[in-house]
This record gives sequence, C-alpha cells and structure tokens, in this order.
Amino acid sequence: MTSWDSGRRRALAQLEEHLAAGRVDEDIVPLLDAINSIEGLYTTSSCSGRIQVAASRLPGDKGVMRVIAKWHRAVTPMEVEAVLAATPEPDVWFAVHQPILHVAAKTLELARLVLVTARNAGFKHSGIQGLGGRYMVEIMSMEKLEAPLRLRGIDLVEPPLLPYLVEAADAMLEKAKERLRRLEAAFTQLQAHSGEQ
Amino acid sequence: MTSWDSGRRRALAQLEEHLAAGRVDEDIVPLLDAINSIEGLYTTSSCSGRIQVAASRLPGDKGVMRVIAKWHRAVTPMEVEAVLAATPEPDVWFAVHQPILHVAAKTLELARLVLVTARNAGFKHSGIQGLGGRYMVEIMSMEKLEAPLRLRGIDLVEPPLLPYLVEAADAMLEKAKERLRRLEAAFTQLQAHSGEQ
Repeated sequence: MTSWDSGRRRALAQLEEHLAAGRVDEDIVPLLDAINSIEGLYTTSSCSGRIQVAASRLPGDKGVMRVIAKWHRAVTPMEVEAVLAATPEPDVWFAVHQPILHVAAKTLELARLVLVTARNAGFKHSGIQGLGGRYMVEIMSMEKLEAPLRLRGIDLVEPPLLPYLVEAADAMLEKAKERLRRLEAAFTQLQAHSGEQ
Repeated sequence: MTSWDSGRRRALAQLEEHLAAGRVDEDIVPLLDAINSIEGLYTTSSCSGRIQVAASRLPGDKGVMRVIAKWHRAVTPMEVEAVLAATPEPDVWFAVHQPILHVAAKTLELARLVLVTARNAGFKHSGIQGLGGRYMVEIMSMEKLEAPLRLRGIDLVEPPLLPYLVEAADAMLEKAKERLRRLEAAFTQLQAHSGEQ
C-alpha cells in the first residue's frame, strides 16, 4: 500500500470515529460520503457552515478567540440575547461562517477536478494548497457576517434590534446550506461517473 | 514569444496604464513591483485592503451589491456617519476587506513558491486556482468585518456608538497592511535570489 493509500485509510477511519461520536455536522455527511467514495480522494476536515458568538478583541485573532456559542442551524434573537447577557466578555462578535472543506487528491488531475467542481457549485475562493505528497484542495467561499455585539464593554446593538441582525444571519446560513447541497449533487454525479462504486 | 510571455507583457503594460491613471492603491505598488520583476510571474489584479460601506440585502450579493464609499486607509466615525446619513438605501453594510492578489506563474514549481511565500507571510487561505496554460495563485486571508449599519430601513448602531465599530475596523485594516508589508519583504527577498534583476 502506498503512503497515500494508507493516509486515506487513516483519514477515513478517523472520520468513522468522529461520526460515531456525533462530532460531524449531520448536514454535511452525504457530501463527505460522496467525496470519500471516489477512489483517489478523501476529506480531512469540514464544517457545514455555522452561526457563532465568540469573544476576541478583533475577528480572526486565532488562538485568542474564544467561541462562546455556535449553531449549525438558524437561531432566534432570544438565543443570541441570552448568550450575550450571560457572558462577561468585553468584546463579543456575532458571525456566520461559510462551509469549508479540505479534500486530499492523489493526483494533480484529480485536484483540478475537485477545484472545478467546487468553483462551479459557487465556492469561488477554492484553491489547491498542498503540493507535497498529496494535493490538498480547500473548498470555500468568502461571504461572511462578522459583526460586533459588544466592544470595550459597550453593547452596540440594542436588544429590540437584534431580530434584524439575526434575520440576516439566518438567511446567509440558509444560502450557505443551499450551496452545500449543490456541491453534494455535483460530487454525487462525479462519483457515479467515476465507476468506483 | 510564447503565449505565456505575451500574456505577461500585456498584463504588465495594463498595470502601467492603471498606475499612470492613479487606479492602483499606492501602498500595494512596491509589492506588485517585487512580484513583477521576477521572471515567470506577473500580477493580474490586486486590492491592498479597504474599509467599505455598501448597499445590499446580504453581504456577498455579487452584481447586486452597490459600493457607496470605500477607503484604503483608516476612517473616522464622522466619515462613516456622514455616508450613512446621506444614503437612502434600506440595507447598508460596513466592511473591512483583506488584501487580495492574483499572481500568474509560468510553472507549477513557481506557483508553489508563491503559495508557500504567501502562506508564510500570514495569507493562510491562499491557493492555486487556474491550472490551464498558466497557474493562477490567489493570495488572501480570511479575517473580515462585515457588520450591518442598517437593515430594512432601521439603523442598528446608534451614532454615539459608531466610534467603537470604527476603532475595530481601523485596527483590522492596520493589521492587514502590516501583513502586506511582510509579503512585500518576502517577495523582495525572492526577487534578490532569483537573480533576474
């Protein structure tokens, strides 16, 4: 077995473990299955898109940012208000994060196929990142909501206005999930054509 | 001359035109120069990072979104307040967009070098996108601020609280510009080693 094949085997075994433990977002499982049933590909990480409340001075402060609450579904203004009321953090951000996946491909040709498939499904900022023993494709788009709820201890959005913000976040998440379903359909078609199953 | 070389020549001539017309963000010019003086590479588009006020129901509504104001520098709360007061748009978003560049490379080896250089400078979501006659590398990171100022005609952030939002935006833009300077230093070093100049 080549090292690529054993890497694939390890990754799929690990995914099985995560699935069994309920650590994988349910709505991305059919997409992961479609990709992983294509010989020459495997997924290494994924997020189906989420709404999140996190504490950090600025967004993207990796290692410093602390996730206070996250949901892989639409939320209600009351849920967000409750999370905000319960945290003493002085800087709190409300975000919609797009789906993101990493797919390892055995050949450059396959990596290119993954890339084209992702871009056609609307994941316009996808790209090939690793070019060592395996070609790693990052599948993502860039639409984002990242709005401060509180900065330096001051709440910026009054509770009666939270429904407007939450409505926009829920609509963005729904669009993200639709895009994920388009990607699932595209990979399911690839899988049928690949003749591996 | 190969078609790649003539593509490079056209792109550089076009850049000269844009520079002469003042259409290129000044603070990205030294980086573009460093990249474009390396044989086998050329830039096709770039933005040095900006603060923006735009109208659209949701962020990322391409083709629909209308930019109302943008700045490639720090802004003041009064500037943002004035723009908001002057627009009748019902849905208005305030954003910090990270620097983004597209670099064409002649070979996969060079594309990989661009990718590694970008990632090491902090542009973690860079990737190779085009794999046809040229390898196109998208250089970007993903930190973003994208906050609604107004939704469905309702202002969400009271004017006295705008300084908190603007302070965060200015700090994010400054971090983005620092990252751009790191990238410039890295490409300047590459250029020195490439021995092409």
